[in-house]
Amino acid sequence: MSLDIVSQSKCFGGTQATCRHASTETGCDMRFAVFTPPQAAHRPVPVVWFLSGLTCTEENFTVKAGAQRVAAERGLMLIAPDTSPRGEGVPDDPAGAYDFGLGAGFYVDATREPWSKHYRMRSYLERELPALVGRELPVDMMRQGIMGHSMGGHGALTIALREPARFRAVSAFAPIVSPMNCPWGEKALTGYLGPNRAMWRTYDACALIEDGARLPALLVDQGTADGFLASQLKPELLEAACEKAEIPLTLRRQDGYDHSYFFIASFMADHLRWHAERLG
Amino acid sequence: MSLDIVSQSKCFGGTQATCRHASTETGCDMRFAVFTPPQAAHRPVPVVWFLSGLTCTEENFTVKAGAQRVAAERGLMLIAPDTSPRGEGVPDDPAGAYDFGLGAGFYVDATREPWSKHYRMRSYLERELPALVGRELPVDMMRQGIMGHSMGGHGALTIALREPARFRAVSAFAPIVSPMNCPWGEKALTGYLGPNRAMWRTYDACALIEDGARLPALLVDQGTADGFLASQLKPELLEAACEKAEIPLTLRRQDGYDHSYFFIASFMADHLRWHAERLG
Repeated sequence: MSLDIVSQSKCFGGTQATCRHASTETGCDMRFAVFTPPQAAHRPVPVVWFLSGLTCTEENFTVKAGAQRVAAERGLMLIAPDTSPRGEGVPDDPAGAYDFGLGAGFYVDATREPWSKHYRMRSYLERELPALVGRELPVDMMRQGIMGHSMGGHGALTIALREPARFRAVSAFAPIVSPMNCPWGEKALTGYLGPNRAMWRTYDACALIEDGARLPALLVDQGTADGFLASQLKPELLEAACEKAEIPLTLRRQDGYDHSYFFIASFMADHLRWHAERLG
Repeated sequence: MSLDIVSQSKCFGGTQATCRHASTETGCDMRFAVFTPPQAAHRPVPVVWFLSGLTCTEENFTVKAGAQRVAAERGLMLIAPDTSPRGEGVPDDPAGAYDFGLGAGFYVDATREPWSKHYRMRSYLERELPALVGRELPVDMMRQGIMGHSMGGHGALTIALREPARFRAVSAFAPIVSPMNCPWGEKALTGYLGPNRAMWRTYDACALIEDGARLPALLVDQGTADGFLASQLKPELLEAACEKAEIPLTLRRQDGYDHSYFFIASFMADHLRWHAERLG
């Protein structure tokens, strides 16, 4: 398993690169973006993973979130993976929908045909990519944080809840907090996993908490003018689950903000500082 | 002349919008992006114009430069126009080249057919758009600054040199400092203006300075790893012209930076602070 650098640019004293590698889990070439802060020239640095939302690639966060400035100040590596397998032979939604198939891997290991061969984003992000990053990049894997947006917020929360010891800090922007209880999630989980809802619970942040998963703390920002707020995102479900489980949730309802990267950029510095404080 | 808001999002406490209007100068609908800082709710605010480079629309700066954060802190409106006329009936480079026609207006008033009807970006930016902005937006037009990147750096420098009283602050990222002395410029000026090089001088920052134009100060950042540095950008020509004319030029050669928005974003805060100090 080797790592190709597709492009790189100096940025805030560090390096923003796009990398490509052949993935065993997804059975295709995968890309991810990595910002290496200037501090990595001298020592391994902590890493913050950013999982993106529907339709995104590794590029959206990289060019739109404005995260490199604070990451350079605080000495954080940033890694933004793609949101699905891609390439020849990777099946897409038959109708070309934006919310299933390419760009919409939903951070699951699919069990249904024809998705199960390539759509293994859970194992890719839990095992394969961290192993590659730990081997190839100047990173301290004992200090990892994870954040995400929308579908990627769901990804960040569920990965962290299943493996809390791996992450010292977790946060999300406008996450899908319960895919079992929204149209995006029901479509994706039915398609990738089949109709047995018991199999969905490990991919639902609220269900994981109900089933006993815990986090030491959690930061979530949610815009009040987000068009998906009532139908898909439903932060009140996470609020209720965390309250019952006594998980300290900082849920900030940001007045007037929508679902876009203009919202994410506005609060990115807060999130990176939250991570930096916990990553030491 | 009216202004349609195509989209808007809250961003750093202000509003990032994309606007559309029917332009008399270019004979087509034009778009521009505007960031209105929170301070504009209480009083007219200064405005900084950002002119973009080849292939760009109003969107590139808006999503990639990370400028809104400092603009919100300092109370600056940001306006990013498109780089050419567009739409049905607007001619493009016959070969579809990226450096002429659509996305490559070069901030001139074309005098040659078939370009002269629509390619009037100089008059659009010197007269029509400022008049519209001054009438429709909460801006103090006595406090204007201008900056740009690459072709847009050329635009910012030449517009400011021709009309220094309009701008209290001028800066550029990797500007084309002398289109008369580089392939991009020679192609564009020949195409839009014809072969008589005497007609080109008002569109060449170095020639304008040689011919007597002056600015009170100028900030330019140029990456040393910029692939266009030696062939197209040639900051040493601006350095020589400014030295001879006693124009205080702060030219910073930024080690290892390329021509991308990762370079622009890295130094955007410096430029906005330069403008804010001069715009009061």
